[in-house]
Amino acid sequence: MVIEIISVGTEFLMGNIVNSNGAWLSEKCAALGFCPYFQSVVGEHTEKIGIAIDRALDFSDIVIVTSGLGTAQDDLIRETVTKTFGVEGARVIDNPNGIAPGLILQKNGKAVIVLPGTTNEMIPVFEEGVVPFLKSLQQEALYSKLVKLCGVEEGKVVTELRTLITNRSNPSITIYTKAGEVHIRVTAHAKSEEEAKELVKPVVKLIKGHFGKQVYSTDEKETLEEAVVKLLRKMEMTICTAESCTGGLLAARIVNVSGASEVFGQGYVTYANRAKRKLLEVDKNTLKKHGAVSKQTAREMALGAALASGADIGVSITGVAGPDPDEDKPVGLVYIGCYYKDEVLVEEHHFTGNRQAIREQAVSKALELLRRVILEEK
Amino acid sequence: MVIEIISVGTEFLMGNIVNSNGAWLSEKCAALGFCPYFQSVVGEHTEKIGIAIDRALDFSDIVIVTSGLGTAQDDLIRETVTKTFGVEGARVIDNPNGIAPGLILQKNGKAVIVLPGTTNEMIPVFEEGVVPFLKSLQQEALYSKLVKLCGVEEGKVVTELRTLITNRSNPSITIYTKAGEVHIRVTAHAKSEEEAKELVKPVVKLIKGHFGKQVYSTDEKETLEEAVVKLLRKMEMTICTAESCTGGLLAARIVNVSGASEVFGQGYVTYANRAKRKLLEVDKNTLKKHGAVSKQTAREMALGAALASGADIGVSITGVAGPDPDEDKPVGLVYIGCYYKDEVLVEEHHFTGNRQAIREQAVSKALELLRRVILEEK
Repeated sequence: MVIEIISVGTEFLMGNIVNSNGAWLSEKCAALGFCPYFQSVVGEHTEKIGIAIDRALDFSDIVIVTSGLGTAQDDLIRETVTKTFGVEGARVIDNPNGIAPGLILQKNGKAVIVLPGTTNEMIPVFEEGVVPFLKSLQQEALYSKLVKLCGVEEGKVVTELRTLITNRSNPSITIYTKAGEVHIRVTAHAKSEEEAKELVKPVVKLIKGHFGKQVYSTDEKETLEEAVVKLLRKMEMTICTAESCTGGLLAARIVNVSGASEVFGQGYVTYANRAKRKLLEVDKNTLKKHGAVSKQTAREMALGAALASGADIGVSITGVAGPDPDEDKPVGLVYIGCYYKDEVLVEEHHFTGNRQAIREQAVSKALELLRRVILEEK
Repeated sequence: MVIEIISVGTEFLMGNIVNSNGAWLSEKCAALGFCPYFQSVVGEHTEKIGIAIDRALDFSDIVIVTSGLGTAQDDLIRETVTKTFGVEGARVIDNPNGIAPGLILQKNGKAVIVLPGTTNEMIPVFEEGVVPFLKSLQQEALYSKLVKLCGVEEGKVVTELRTLITNRSNPSITIYTKAGEVHIRVTAHAKSEEEAKELVKPVVKLIKGHFGKQVYSTDEKETLEEAVVKLLRKMEMTICTAESCTGGLLAARIVNVSGASEVFGQGYVTYANRAKRKLLEVDKNTLKKHGAVSKQTAREMALGAALASGADIGVSITGVAGPDPDEDKPVGLVYIGCYYKDEVLVEEHHFTGNRQAIREQAVSKALELLRRVILEEK
């Protein structure tokens, strides 16, 4: 069945707020076996919302409309939907975190679903009220599992899966990349969820067996930093970060994991050479001879971070995020170091993209290196 | 004239990548006087792309199609657009950063524009080739100016502008909020750009006069952190950060400003109490008596950061980002401290939202406090 997601909000149209609700809903609907062919964004005008719903109903069986941030908007959308779709009664879904409830309207085998726009209100309304409704529409049961990989290129995954799994229609396999990671979704349909599960299981096992340690999670919600923090907690290891070009982004991703305090006590942002020397005891001559962006400096930063903090592991990042090259070093050149048990591993990377993109890739690669070092010990 | 932006890419539909190109284009088109009523996202299927273009042409004068990330996608879109729109010849726009050029196809007073999907390719193609084309379609010239405010609530801006400016049709005024900031766009139309400029000027002057120091920039591209770094450079001041719950995000935003090295040498991420004591010399008794999330700890962290680094200013953040409350402290409670010249200013905030949202608001407020402290000195 085809589904279209319409997000109402001038703030999305104008680019003030990124439409992350639309993306979230698309992924969830796809996992439930619906085809989210179209997504659209429309401003808060009764007429335009009406047009958007009308044209969505031409091609889709289900239309999900999410509103923007205000209660006034919620009312406007509710009225417009009822008027456009020409249905009086609606199934109401409780909103535990807000005032505006969710609505399901049905007519001639099609349905329009209205959701509140605030993410923390939308998610429970969708999960409690909409998921069971969508499942009830499916002729067949569906089961889907996500396998998350790091430290491997998308092209390699595509090629290897092609030889690994020849029949890819049921379960179907979808591959996508997320900031240096590759996610594989395995989805099967069958008469019962149990049967679908049985179809998915051997394929997931095959993928996990093939990619081995590159699989960091099969949990829908677990992020790479969560997996790394979990590993560190399990191994009772502590870490300390030393960042130059990423300026604290690696520490921020680790600290964003609830419970990170057990493994992460402190981190250093050493942007200036003086700070690298003073806080991490990077040798003056190393900086002079090889420069701040060098394998040698990354090595001494990682070591220094561990020694200064007393942590088991020290992770360092130093590189040229751009837009200008750093003396003779090109934009995108980043060294990542990882100290553990008297040894320092340093990797050289050449990233592309703007300043922000280079920094994000560096952080992902640092988490991945960190994970590899911990796994060696396991 | 009505414009619709269609982003092609299964990765957007599936939520792998956030559709920031669509948001960027909407804002640019709106600033050029076009009405971006609809935005849509469609997967990489010839048929679906065709449907999306067809239905867009029903309501819009201009349709902009941006592709996803691959060259294969670019070709697919090009073919589909040409076929759907039924036009053979196209105006070609050079792509200085990639292979796939931009295209402008025209027929019966409507136009379809195809852009490459990679942001750093899309932007120059749009600015060099599409902006002049769009301007040529406008009967009237348009001029628009953005006034960026921080440290003021949207509601207050709306109310005060209502009494300040009675005629709001030409120039028109659009207000929107961005992570703790309020942006006011003033747009006028007239026979010539010069005339439109003359209409905008007094209104911008009025707004700047009214909101005074709360206006941090009238430059489209300048971010709050850029404005703060510029101020610091002008005043020849240096800063050091000490972060707990934000885990390095404040430092990362400052370091993201090109040229930040002149004012920012180092920062501390002191997540554990031990790190607060060791690196920032926060008193053991302060932590014991008032807790890590307290006015007193924020005060000592800010002071400690300045003393440890030798920077003129020390900025600290300590709070409860959630999801769980910290002992007796509620989620969202954040203290922000700023040391300068033997004085420490500490502010208490109560933020709402999830962990990520609370951290982002804290960083914005810290930048705003920092800016206020510097301006006092000016």
